[in-house]
Amino acid sequence: MSLLIVGTVAFDTIETPFGKAEKTVGGAATYIALSASAFTENIEIVSVVGEDFPAKTIEEFHKRKIGTGGLQIIPGKKSFYWAGRYRTDMNSRETLVTELNVLADFNPIVPQPFRSADFLMLGNLTPLVQQQVLNQMTKRPKLVVMDTMNYWMESMPKELAATISRVDVLTINDEEARQLSGEYSLVKAAQKIMQMGPKYLIIKKGEHGALLFYDKHVFFAPALPLEDVFDPTGAGDSFAGGFIGYLDKTKDISFDNMKRAVIFGSAIASFCVEKFGIDRLLELSTADVEDRVQEFIDLVQFDIALD
Amino acid sequence: MSLLIVGTVAFDTIETPFGKAEKTVGGAATYIALSASAFTENIEIVSVVGEDFPAKTIEEFHKRKIGTGGLQIIPGKKSFYWAGRYRTDMNSRETLVTELNVLADFNPIVPQPFRSADFLMLGNLTPLVQQQVLNQMTKRPKLVVMDTMNYWMESMPKELAATISRVDVLTINDEEARQLSGEYSLVKAAQKIMQMGPKYLIIKKGEHGALLFYDKHVFFAPALPLEDVFDPTGAGDSFAGGFIGYLDKTKDISFDNMKRAVIFGSAIASFCVEKFGIDRLLELSTADVEDRVQEFIDLVQFDIALD
Repeated sequence: MSLLIVGTVAFDTIETPFGKAEKTVGGAATYIALSASAFTENIEIVSVVGEDFPAKTIEEFHKRKIGTGGLQIIPGKKSFYWAGRYRTDMNSRETLVTELNVLADFNPIVPQPFRSADFLMLGNLTPLVQQQVLNQMTKRPKLVVMDTMNYWMESMPKELAATISRVDVLTINDEEARQLSGEYSLVKAAQKIMQMGPKYLIIKKGEHGALLFYDKHVFFAPALPLEDVFDPTGAGDSFAGGFIGYLDKTKDISFDNMKRAVIFGSAIASFCVEKFGIDRLLELSTADVEDRVQEFIDLVQFDIALD
Repeated sequence: MSLLIVGTVAFDTIETPFGKAEKTVGGAATYIALSASAFTENIEIVSVVGEDFPAKTIEEFHKRKIGTGGLQIIPGKKSFYWAGRYRTDMNSRETLVTELNVLADFNPIVPQPFRSADFLMLGNLTPLVQQQVLNQMTKRPKLVVMDTMNYWMESMPKELAATISRVDVLTINDEEARQLSGEYSLVKAAQKIMQMGPKYLIIKKGEHGALLFYDKHVFFAPALPLEDVFDPTGAGDSFAGGFIGYLDKTKDISFDNMKRAVIFGSAIASFCVEKFGIDRLLELSTADVEDRVQEFIDLVQFDIALD
C-alpha cells in the first residue's frame, strides 16, 4: 500500500505557559507524515519549503521511509512561517505572525509513482491546492481523508465545498463543524456535513476526545486525561496521521477498523502534546504506542451484560 | 439494601432557548431519588418543603417506593425556589432568583430505620446540613456519596473540607475540581482532591462526559451525543441518582461495578435533559434504560488486540 500526504512543511514559533520554542520545524504534512510513519512505510509528502529548511529534518523523514520526491525546495526563498501563543487553558491560541513565503504560489506536483496511491491525506491547506492534488491522481484512491479549518470556510466557501464533495473522510473540530453546518448540535451538524459528500466525519474535540460519524452510527474516542499538555500544536495533524497510517497498514477501511484507527490516532496525538513541536514524535517506539493504546482500552473499558 | 438521600426538594423556573417552565418541581433530592428509583426501591428522602408543595409529587414519590418520612412539610411557609436562564450553548446559566424560604433554617432529621442505611447520598446543600445527616447515622454506611458546588468552596471552605473528609465518593464538575484543588490539569486536581479524603472522585464534564478516579486509575464515560439538549437542569443530580441507585441495587462497590454505575448514571442523565424538569424521569421504563445503555456500549466499544 502507499500513502500520499499533501500539506504544509514549515517553521513555527510556539509560546505556551511552559516556555517558548523558536522556529521549530512544524507544518501539517510534517506532523501527519511522522505520525503515519509509526504504522506504515511507503509514504510520500507533497509540499514546498525554502532553502532555509534544515537538511536534518529531511534526513529524519528519509530514516522513517517518508519520501520527499514531492517536496519542492525553492532556492532563494523562505519556508512558510507561523508564530502563535497559547492561553493558559491551552484550548485557545492567538496567531502572532503568518508569513506565507514559498506557500504563496505553491503548485503541487505529485510524483508519478504516487499518482495511484491507495491512501490520500489532504492536510489543511487552501482547498484549491487540495483539489490540484486530487486532479493529478490517475486512479481514485481507496480512501481520501481531508482536514480543513474555519479560515477556508470564511474566505473560499465555494471552493471548500467543491473539495469536500470529493473526499471520503472529513476531519474538523467542533467549532468548525458548527460553522460549516450552521447547526449547534454536533449530531445535526454531522448529518448535514455528510450530505455535502463525505461518508465519514470526524469531529475533533481536543481534550474532550473525538467523534467518528458514519451513516446513523457514531463512535466516540476519549482523549487521555494527561497530567500536563505541554504544547497542543500539531495534535490534530498527529491524530489524522495516526488514523490514516493505521488504515494504510491494515488495508481495511471498514467502520470497525476506522474505530481502531481513531484510537491509534488519539494515542499518537496524546504523545505529540507532551513536548514542543515534533520532538516527542521523533522519539516514538512501537512499544510506546502499544502501551498508550492499552491505556485507552483501560480508560473506557467496562463490562455490562444487559438482559 | 437501603438508600438515604438528603438534598433540596424545591420549585424551579427554567428558561432555555426552547421555552420556559414556570415553578416546576425540582431540587437535588427530587432528581436523585427519581433517578435512583429506576434501579432500587428502599429509598428515603431527608429534606424540607413548604405547604405550597404539591401532594401530587409526593404521590409520585410513593408510587416509586421513595419514602418521605424525612421530608418535613412546614405549615405557613414556602418551598425553596430557584429561577435561572440558560444561554444558547446550554453550558452556562445565570441565576435570576434564589429564595431560600424553608431551607433557611432546615434542621434535617433522619427517620430511625434509615440511620443504618447502607447507602447515603449527600446531595448539594450546605456542608453543615450534610454533616448533620452524617452525624445521625448509627452505623457507617457502606458508601457515602457527596455532591457539592463552587458556592460552598467560596463561602465555607473549612466546613466543606470537613464534610469532604468524611465521604467515599465526591462528585463535582470540572471547573469545581479546578477551583477546589487549585490545579488546572484534571489528573493533578483529582490526586489532590482524593488526598482530602474521598477514595473516589467523579468529575462531571456535562456534554463531554464524566471521569471516575480511584487511586491511580481513571475511567471515562462519554455523554451520549444528543440531537438536542432541551433542559440541562438536574442532569448532574440524575447522574448521581442513577449511580448510587445502581450500586444500591447491585450491592457491589468494587471499582469495576462503579464503572458500570457511572454508565447507568450517564444514561439516566441523558434522559433527564430531553424534557423540562423531572418530566422525562417520570416516564422512564426499564426498557428505555436498557436501550440507552446499549447506545453507550455501541458508542465506545472497539476491539483492538495488542501483541
